[in-house]
Amino acid sequence: MNQEKIREKFPMLKNDIIFLDSGALVQKPIQVINAINDFYTKYSISNRTSDSELGIIVGQKIDKTRKMTADLLECSEEEIMFNSGTTEGLNYCAQLFSQLINEDDEILISKFNHSSNMIPWIEIAKEKKAKIIFSDDIINDINSKTKIIAYAQKNNSFNIQINAKELFEKAKKYYAFIINDAAQAISHEKVSAKYCDAIAFSSNKFFGPTGLGILYVSKNILAKVSAKKYGGGAIDYINKIGNWKAKNSIVKHEPGTLNLAGIFGFYEAIIFFNSLDKKWMKEYLFDLSSYAYDKLSSLDNVKIVSCKGDSIILFEIKNSTSQDVASYLGHNNVYVRSGLFCAQYLNHIIENSLVRISLHIYNNKQDIDKLIEVLKRGGDFLDFI
Amino acid sequence: MNQEKIREKFPMLKNDIIFLDSGALVQKPIQVINAINDFYTKYSISNRTSDSELGIIVGQKIDKTRKMTADLLECSEEEIMFNSGTTEGLNYCAQLFSQLINEDDEILISKFNHSSNMIPWIEIAKEKKAKIIFSDDIINDINSKTKIIAYAQKNNSFNIQINAKELFEKAKKYYAFIINDAAQAISHEKVSAKYCDAIAFSSNKFFGPTGLGILYVSKNILAKVSAKKYGGGAIDYINKIGNWKAKNSIVKHEPGTLNLAGIFGFYEAIIFFNSLDKKWMKEYLFDLSSYAYDKLSSLDNVKIVSCKGDSIILFEIKNSTSQDVASYLGHNNVYVRSGLFCAQYLNHIIENSLVRISLHIYNNKQDIDKLIEVLKRGGDFLDFI
Repeated sequence: MNQEKIREKFPMLKNDIIFLDSGALVQKPIQVINAINDFYTKYSISNRTSDSELGIIVGQKIDKTRKMTADLLECSEEEIMFNSGTTEGLNYCAQLFSQLINEDDEILISKFNHSSNMIPWIEIAKEKKAKIIFSDDIINDINSKTKIIAYAQKNNSFNIQINAKELFEKAKKYYAFIINDAAQAISHEKVSAKYCDAIAFSSNKFFGPTGLGILYVSKNILAKVSAKKYGGGAIDYINKIGNWKAKNSIVKHEPGTLNLAGIFGFYEAIIFFNSLDKKWMKEYLFDLSSYAYDKLSSLDNVKIVSCKGDSIILFEIKNSTSQDVASYLGHNNVYVRSGLFCAQYLNHIIENSLVRISLHIYNNKQDIDKLIEVLKRGGDFLDFI
Repeated sequence: MNQEKIREKFPMLKNDIIFLDSGALVQKPIQVINAINDFYTKYSISNRTSDSELGIIVGQKIDKTRKMTADLLECSEEEIMFNSGTTEGLNYCAQLFSQLINEDDEILISKFNHSSNMIPWIEIAKEKKAKIIFSDDIINDINSKTKIIAYAQKNNSFNIQINAKELFEKAKKYYAFIINDAAQAISHEKVSAKYCDAIAFSSNKFFGPTGLGILYVSKNILAKVSAKKYGGGAIDYINKIGNWKAKNSIVKHEPGTLNLAGIFGFYEAIIFFNSLDKKWMKEYLFDLSSYAYDKLSSLDNVKIVSCKGDSIILFEIKNSTSQDVASYLGHNNVYVRSGLFCAQYLNHIIENSLVRISLHIYNNKQDIDKLIEVLKRGGDFLDFI
């Protein structure tokens, strides 16, 4: 594939910025932005106004997007729920699965998890008198008491490789459920419902709009649990004494008006993603990440804690705090993150907070060269020339 | 004010459609659409990347929008939470206030409520062994057992006038909390935190983007309750055994990446709304609604169940189901709603489902004339010429 042509599709990158923070937000190709605009100027009708020219278009777009999302995750559209983001999805997921958790059950949490895939489980554990086990080797730590395994197929700091198939096989042997926070994985590698019981991700990290998330939960789980959000569009009836019945379809988990413009944009994001050659993408990112690794390594006083080839590169600079480095770069139009990346538990694993650069297919070697140039220009401030 | 100039700001209305469904979705002025586009093309940076040129702009936009929302509702910005919509807000509200509900407390629910301000309370009542009281006269029904009063200042079907000040004064006398579902009121009339303890509304019903909601909860309540959604950006620390602490500010209620593009658009929606002459708006909508009432009344077999002057007009047509009427209109580019408008409980009050037209300031008499013309053209099908 032609990387230059791909890069050209991203209007943000035509500005004078070096964007190295795709772990936090993935930029949006023009077709996604246009689709959002199209919704507001051509199709701006509630999906509840379904039996009308435009209502049918809106309804079909929702259905098609749900189907395409299901295809992406290798599941059925009756297992795909739209919400507002990964965090919302993981919180909701905890509410659903809590209905299957009993006293003394164990909830196995990877130490590398984002806090959004940690705290909801900690709170459910309190409620259900279950036990939280923090693990840095989740496959090994599964045992007969394990009910939930909360992990991320790819996380937003260290590149921890877990064999999803092996994890799934062991989990099934022990009747444990696997929750996959796919926020980081979704735009990088295959995420499949075949190897877990729930998947949460954000459109925002998949070339799509902000404010839209996707939650997959296996229909065999959905059949066992009740919806835990309530309201318009999700209700069949309410009787005079307040007994009510939820609709008998996936929409019972989606009360209220959906993020319709978000769905229009996300639809195009899937089309964009599907058009990418995944083999090329992997190789391109590996090469670019390796290039960045080498360039950063060549700087005095830079210590990289990631492996060569990871598209997320964590590093520190001797005698500078990561916040200072990120701030200096940020004010020179180089966008990186510093800190613990919402994975506060890392505090107990790493000594210092770190600078993170996270690369995506729209990045190129010039972006890295600019990063290095700005770092070098830091001179006295950064104290490493 | 010049209505024609206002109407011109709405790109959707330049299409060949007659939009009479503002109760479900309020159209968006061009400045809102442009602001969303600007976010994705000029400022598309996570708010967590705050210490950078663009991060500061994004952060300030969030802060300013929160402040402007607080001004709109006459409260403090430390009482404004961003979420995904009214339904999400009311569900979350029920989670927060449930912490203050005890066994045998009464939850007073207006019979005219949208199901999103009904079912969350029914579920909390089950959990807390509290009692649900459905009421068609909430002020009168407040008593010493009342803990929560869930109502809508303006609802999406019948125009029920409740004196907010009188309600508030009586509620406070009995130490009851008032939850105001302001989804319908927010773009029509003053909604004030002075007369309730919580307010939920959607940007989508306030000239703004889909997928963004606002929840106000009084700081005196917030001080007494814990956050009930958990994740990135909302956490101060997690220790080794899983004890954790939420941040000590309103953001503890907003885990995950916010709908940033939504906030950029909503900011412009507030500016647009603030620019409207509210006295003119009220008079214009009253006149237009009265015009629609008269025109509809003049048709044989049309029975209007709303009062003259209401901007929401419910009607039925003899020998036609409301679904058929709405579908016929919808396929002639006239957008209305039919059914129970997500207020299923209405089933126990009204006999038949109804057709709803809901007007806003961008509508004009030509819209009404077109509605009437299309209805008349229905001929045999509608059976009322």
